Amino acid sequence: MSDGGLVVIGLDPGSRVTGYGIVRELSGKAELIDTGTVRTPVKKDMATRMGVIYRELDKLIAAHGPVEAAIENVFVSRNPSSALKLGQARGAAMAACAVRGLPVAEYEPSKVKKNLVGVGNAPKDQVAFMVAHCLGVKKPAWAEDASDALAVAICHLNERRMRKLTGV
Amino acid sequence: MSDGGLVVIGLDPGSRVTGYGIVRELSGKAELIDTGTVRTPVKKDMATRMGVIYRELDKLIAAHGPVEAAIENVFVSRNPSSALKLGQARGAAMAACAVRGLPVAEYEPSKVKKNLVGVGNAPKDQVAFMVAHCLGVKKPAWAEDASDALAVAICHLNERRMRKLTGV
Repeated sequence: MSDGGLVVIGLDPGSRVTGYGIVRELSGKAELIDTGTVRTPVKKDMATRMGVIYRELDKLIAAHGPVEAAIENVFVSRNPSSALKLGQARGAAMAACAVRGLPVAEYEPSKVKKNLVGVGNAPKDQVAFMVAHCLGVKKPAWAEDASDALAVAICHLNERRMRKLTGV
Repeated sequence: MSDGGLVVIGLDPGSRVTGYGIVRELSGKAELIDTGTVRTPVKKDMATRMGVIYRELDKLIAAHGPVEAAIENVFVSRNPSSALKLGQARGAAMAACAVRGLPVAEYEPSKVKKNLVGVGNAPKDQVAFMVAHCLGVKKPAWAEDASDALAVAICHLNERRMRKLTGV
């Protein structure tokens, strides 16, 4: 970690929309660096779309220099066809991080909710509210996928700090 | 296509083992350039493994210069958890091709079998036999995943030639 603080990227991959949130932690406070979504061209074939996810995340990592990544584990209660598509987007996103040397931490969705709100089954808007609160943003205009990505980034920073404090 | 013929790469992605087969077509004949498998470190986390798939395929593409890629569509009759894992490997592999500018053609497994053997439900060993026959290899020592990757590469070359002849 340099004097500029620790920068991490949170990801919420999807074959249509992939949310990302880049957050810096400095002196125990989280600060928003960049957030948004990568939208893939839905009329193009899947490989082209996976290339877009990879390239855009690669560019973001190069531009902002996060040193660690975090991603939500997914429930696989969906149907196999959706799981395959979601898996493809996750694979492209994970590869982008791994090729840049970023370790990727995975968190259960309930863990992220519990970390931010205090309960594992918190509704989405409460999570979004806490994301904005943690980052000191009053009226966030970001998309849901971006907010989810920020949530897992903040969860990762909190978990990381906790592990450091408890030495686990 | 240069004078050196058309080079394509066939892929059979999996989170543990990804088969690849690189084939050149010159004057209507298919010639083996390289084939094998990318094995991911099973004890490492999934993102690290996806990074291995991406990087190894990227290296192979750089070394042999295929200009098109082919991949089998998958049946999604498996359970969602397997579909997610398989999807991740496919996403990493597709991204590696797309970032290098290779279009990726997808073929149904039955299409590949029909193309090589003549029937859509041909057994695996018959497909493997035809792969070896097409490439003029007498006693192939390649792994099953490598053979499957070669099959889709050869199918792609055949389909491509057919489309050119029929102008479709």
